[in-house]
Amino acid sequence: MSVPKITAVGSIGLDTVTTPAGSREEMLGGSVIHFAVSASFQTRVGIVGVVGDDFPAKEIAFLERRGIDVRGIETIRGGRTFRWAGSYMNDLNAADTHSTELNVFARFEPKLPAEYARAPFLFLANIHPQLQLHVIGEMGGKAYRICDTMNLWIRETRDALRAVFKKVDMVIMNDGEARMFTGEGNLIRAGKAMLSFGLDYCVVKKGEHGAMVFGRKGFFAAVPAYPVERVVDPTGAGDSFAGGFAGCLARLGRTDHAAVRQALRWGSIMGSFNVADFSCDRFRRLKDAQLRARVKEFDAVCGVR
Amino acid sequence: MSVPKITAVGSIGLDTVTTPAGSREEMLGGSVIHFAVSASFQTRVGIVGVVGDDFPAKEIAFLERRGIDVRGIETIRGGRTFRWAGSYMNDLNAADTHSTELNVFARFEPKLPAEYARAPFLFLANIHPQLQLHVIGEMGGKAYRICDTMNLWIRETRDALRAVFKKVDMVIMNDGEARMFTGEGNLIRAGKAMLSFGLDYCVVKKGEHGAMVFGRKGFFAAVPAYPVERVVDPTGAGDSFAGGFAGCLARLGRTDHAAVRQALRWGSIMGSFNVADFSCDRFRRLKDAQLRARVKEFDAVCGVR
Repeated sequence: MSVPKITAVGSIGLDTVTTPAGSREEMLGGSVIHFAVSASFQTRVGIVGVVGDDFPAKEIAFLERRGIDVRGIETIRGGRTFRWAGSYMNDLNAADTHSTELNVFARFEPKLPAEYARAPFLFLANIHPQLQLHVIGEMGGKAYRICDTMNLWIRETRDALRAVFKKVDMVIMNDGEARMFTGEGNLIRAGKAMLSFGLDYCVVKKGEHGAMVFGRKGFFAAVPAYPVERVVDPTGAGDSFAGGFAGCLARLGRTDHAAVRQALRWGSIMGSFNVADFSCDRFRRLKDAQLRARVKEFDAVCGVR
Repeated sequence: MSVPKITAVGSIGLDTVTTPAGSREEMLGGSVIHFAVSASFQTRVGIVGVVGDDFPAKEIAFLERRGIDVRGIETIRGGRTFRWAGSYMNDLNAADTHSTELNVFARFEPKLPAEYARAPFLFLANIHPQLQLHVIGEMGGKAYRICDTMNLWIRETRDALRAVFKKVDMVIMNDGEARMFTGEGNLIRAGKAMLSFGLDYCVVKKGEHGAMVFGRKGFFAAVPAYPVERVVDPTGAGDSFAGGFAGCLARLGRTDHAAVRQALRWGSIMGSFNVADFSCDRFRRLKDAQLRARVKEFDAVCGVR
């Protein structure tokens, strides 16, 4: 097996979700899964994560069919996979968590296959900042480092999160997290404040309102969201955004302004596919021609062509 | 005097506003003022409105210096100008109204100077839908008709508003109004639903999140907001957006997709200048070179150049 373009670490789980569109039980989920499936349309991702031996073999097969490197998925014998249950009945932008069973994820110790350490990009999906720091230590020093996070870690482990931000090249967060972490109500000031950690870029996701990216020396770019009339399941939309974004950078092999602008579009596009069905199901049946058509359509929406 | 490119009708008032940036009393305000001042950077607007003889002559002189046709501003002898007082202490997106004195505006009967009726564009700023209908009747049948509205008319005079929508070519509204009028929570469906009135386009403004436009046969375009770090006074931002938007169409003399995409950018840009100071004050000192620089910068933000 070859060196992946992106080494990605995060949660792998089975999600039970209720939305206005219906309910589904024990679907493929987890931050690194949504990320990798989305990124797999542009590049080769190596997943680092942990599951129990109850994890469906057919889902591993699905990841492999998508060209995803699964050598870094550790299976704990006799262990039970992470499970999350939640609903979005009142607001499609905010999940109500019904239950979280950490199971094998509670003692997750990310282990990188040797070739993963040579990947040119590292994506740290939403997991405990101490685990993110551990993985940074395991990776070769040359990888371009991108991290995501969540409100829980901002509240509970702010110091560890600061340590992560100091060691990465790019942070991807949502608008609420950017405001919460920086204490800035104005999103533009919040995004700029993030750069003080020495980041190249800070990406702020705004759900149905699109996304923005802040860079050094006043660089700024923004995209609207691709218009979605029927959001079936928003779970994983942010991870799919990150997958489209980082997948684009990895495909281009660049992180300059032009690449970041293009990546922002891909993030928006892949997020829009994600929410159109439960779990990663829209991606399971996504055809290359449909993807190409949406990229073209999205560029038209933005007035680029 | 010549025929204006846009005949615009709406309120003219003196605003007393408190925002986190401070308080100002009896500043130049009103929907058609914000619209016309913004549009004046691209085209010639003829204002239709009413003031009392307390209205400052220096403000009429300011409008004239901006090349705005003021022949349609009626002055009522012994009358007192419309006044509004409000604040934005908790949320810069929503004004708390402290007082509204309609004064001469209560008996406003829009009268169009003869040459105004031959303008190629008509902009109906936020006023009572019955007045909007009256002005449509006064105008030549060939003007391209654009209207704005507000939540008050959606609640109180929905039938009259429907009659307006059936007679105009384009509606500009904000996200809350689009949801409220159509009863659609999803903004994409709300925007599309508006087209059923026979509109060419419906523009939905989203404040700090930019704006979208829906057109026949699935046409869709969207822009982010120009990033503003310090919002001083949001009063008139929507009217300034409309002024940039309609001003661009009038300058181009076209309403095709390419013109509408360009107009959307101008709306976003002019809205961003408006909020940077109280009243129209940012526009009073706006230099052409600053405007050109922001247009270029905004196109870069959108990835257009």
